[in-house]
Amino acid sequence: MSDPADPISLTALEAAERIAGGELSSEEYTGACLDRIAAVEDRVHAFAHLDPDAALAQARALDERRRSGGPVGPLHGVPVAVKDIFDTADYPTECGSPILRGRRPMRDSTAVARLRAGGAVIIGKTVTTEFAYYHPGPTRNPHDPERTPGGSSSGSAAAVAAGMVPLAIGSQTNGSVIRPAAFCGVYGCKPTHGTISRHGALMLSQTLDHVGTFARSIGDTALILQVLAGYDADDADTRVLAAPDFLDMAADEPPQPPRFAFVRTPVWDKADAGTREAFERFVDDLGESVQTVDLPDAFAAAWDDHRTIMAVDMAHNLRPIVERGGEAGASKALREIVAEGGRANALRYLDARANAKRYAAGLAEIFKEFDAIITPATPGIAPKGDATGSPMFCSLWTLTGLPAVTLPLLSGEGGMPLGLQLIGERGGDARLLRTANWLVQQAAG
Amino acid sequence: MSDPADPISLTALEAAERIAGGELSSEEYTGACLDRIAAVEDRVHAFAHLDPDAALAQARALDERRRSGGPVGPLHGVPVAVKDIFDTADYPTECGSPILRGRRPMRDSTAVARLRAGGAVIIGKTVTTEFAYYHPGPTRNPHDPERTPGGSSSGSAAAVAAGMVPLAIGSQTNGSVIRPAAFCGVYGCKPTHGTISRHGALMLSQTLDHVGTFARSIGDTALILQVLAGYDADDADTRVLAAPDFLDMAADEPPQPPRFAFVRTPVWDKADAGTREAFERFVDDLGESVQTVDLPDAFAAAWDDHRTIMAVDMAHNLRPIVERGGEAGASKALREIVAEGGRANALRYLDARANAKRYAAGLAEIFKEFDAIITPATPGIAPKGDATGSPMFCSLWTLTGLPAVTLPLLSGEGGMPLGLQLIGERGGDARLLRTANWLVQQAAG
Repeated sequence: MSDPADPISLTALEAAERIAGGELSSEEYTGACLDRIAAVEDRVHAFAHLDPDAALAQARALDERRRSGGPVGPLHGVPVAVKDIFDTADYPTECGSPILRGRRPMRDSTAVARLRAGGAVIIGKTVTTEFAYYHPGPTRNPHDPERTPGGSSSGSAAAVAAGMVPLAIGSQTNGSVIRPAAFCGVYGCKPTHGTISRHGALMLSQTLDHVGTFARSIGDTALILQVLAGYDADDADTRVLAAPDFLDMAADEPPQPPRFAFVRTPVWDKADAGTREAFERFVDDLGESVQTVDLPDAFAAAWDDHRTIMAVDMAHNLRPIVERGGEAGASKALREIVAEGGRANALRYLDARANAKRYAAGLAEIFKEFDAIITPATPGIAPKGDATGSPMFCSLWTLTGLPAVTLPLLSGEGGMPLGLQLIGERGGDARLLRTANWLVQQAAG
Repeated sequence: MSDPADPISLTALEAAERIAGGELSSEEYTGACLDRIAAVEDRVHAFAHLDPDAALAQARALDERRRSGGPVGPLHGVPVAVKDIFDTADYPTECGSPILRGRRPMRDSTAVARLRAGGAVIIGKTVTTEFAYYHPGPTRNPHDPERTPGGSSSGSAAAVAAGMVPLAIGSQTNGSVIRPAAFCGVYGCKPTHGTISRHGALMLSQTLDHVGTFARSIGDTALILQVLAGYDADDADTRVLAAPDFLDMAADEPPQPPRFAFVRTPVWDKADAGTREAFERFVDDLGESVQTVDLPDAFAAAWDDHRTIMAVDMAHNLRPIVERGGEAGASKALREIVAEGGRANALRYLDARANAKRYAAGLAEIFKEFDAIITPATPGIAPKGDATGSPMFCSLWTLTGLPAVTLPLLSGEGGMPLGLQLIGERGGDARLLRTANWLVQQAAG
């Protein structure tokens, strides 16, 4: 990755510009990514399905289209990796479950269709934990193979971190984008609930599921959001809105220095000592730009509310397939959450959903004074072993549907990455990227 | 009501036209309605709150506004009665419950605000059963004081039937508009779910609650829907849509004779013999315009699904107030449904909601071939006694959110009215009124 002539050292924005200008072909770029995958996949195990010839054929077709004067999308010729819970018409989609082995969807999910329409090469499908829940796949953390890449979007985070692809998509129902992005040291983004359509993707919970992105810069995050975001009649939670210009806004200078609320949340004590110190030091260094804000006690129940909604919705959506799989086909963890959801009381479920709206209303107050919340992405660096780590620092923002990004600005033991999470106001995704960009520049300066 | 010089014999459309033209003042018209109320209220008990002086003051202000060249809405000067579950800034809103005695909202509900913006005189608040559920208020059926007017919009239906007002609004979570309209022999309409905002009205169930109307003609129904329908940011189920022209469309001749599906539904056997015969005769007389369509067996579970959703949602929304009221403040029926909802399983609840979508998808097939479904509004005429009668012939259309009207075209024992219910396709409210108008003319011819 140190050779500046090697296209994989480019950002997606740079690569897309060179491809559009004819200085780089998609075939060369995709080929370089495939070479990198070939070199490190044995160690990382990021991909569930990869067909180099098919990826190169997509790239050549995109090159041909550009040369013949056809339309060139923002991602024209750029390889993107896709978590194996998004339906793809060309690749299998198995959701990390033996029950779905060999499943071949008829059609692309909306997110994949939008990527293709934006010119992306869908290079392959990345490893997901079983049904995007806890049971891990084979992926290892590129920074240390003894450690988890995090889950559930394990392969997408690892593929971007290992330089296999500049961009990837995943999904988050609790902490499945932010956590692996933080553990792998890349930029993860979970935009406002309903920003990206989930049609044709595995559904765990209509209320909690978000599509998210992995990239190696804020600019690249803006680029892929620009292509993915938008209304879809097949996802009732998407919104009819003027498309915000993520790219221009993310690159803009904020009109005045952003103000940050350092929100430690009720789970702060569960972060390890090194993480707490790293955050306190970072916040100290930020000086007047940041103020510590403590959430009211009522927020302590949010984790239980999230759990209730997730368990019930997962039981609603997955019980038939988990029952079909039986003990051989479904992990204990999956069977347990489905059983837990099956036992839940309906009123408790509706109360949890009503509480989520209250938390969101409470957090909205913070954004009247602050541009973004600063909080850890995870309780610490990626743990050793198979378990994918705790999503506890993501649950509240997933429950409330607020936009979140994790920035690889901190590190822990052995230089392992530690994610700094920023939360923005509902719908303020482009502004959150602008704020994040400002913070990244501050940290670099 | 037989004196043609008496304004209360006018339709709302005629009265609005005369008021707009200066031939009739709102004060005269409202005064005539108040006279009628004074004459029959002792027998009917339609009103929970009535202030004749305040109503006349509204009417005089509207007359003054018209004379001074101010804007004249479609309902300018026309008295409308409002079920006492809709918040009104001038009248108390007690929802038929002793727990809320003396409650005075700060603001009008959206429906009431729209009526006022359309020029209506909010003449008074009508009797509702306790919290729009089963426990009856004092209202009697204007056709026979020994019989129920139906519920829960008892006073609104009775007030229109007794000639006290030309128009009224109510609400339906199961059969609370269509049933009382049918029992009282007026035109009732429950438009597509989300057509009229429920903001500021008592909520039993976001999924099931509909605002509906009572009138003495299809034209008057179109007139009040024209004023009430539309998007409201405060009711997430309302839709941003071009406002359909209910008035013109309802009055139009259908391009070709409508085709009707006679759907007896799985509860047909629970209709009494007289009702079944009356419908079979009516359908026979319609001849080639109608075809009998039997619903698949799966629809038999819809009534249980409706019950589950209603019980859970009512428990979610009313449990705190019912607990506050205790045995003295809440009826046994209300306490029982809240307790039932409190015991329900969350997965059963989500399954019921998913099933509702399946029924709606199944019914949508019928509207590819037919303009409307014909079905009874009730299992028979208004029963004697206090109980408000069964909503069973309404539950399926409420559960699926389809537009329904009841037409007073049939009668039963002793000439008591028997409602013929028409169901239209989702969002096809204006077309349903046009179809209904055609059928009313056929029946009259």
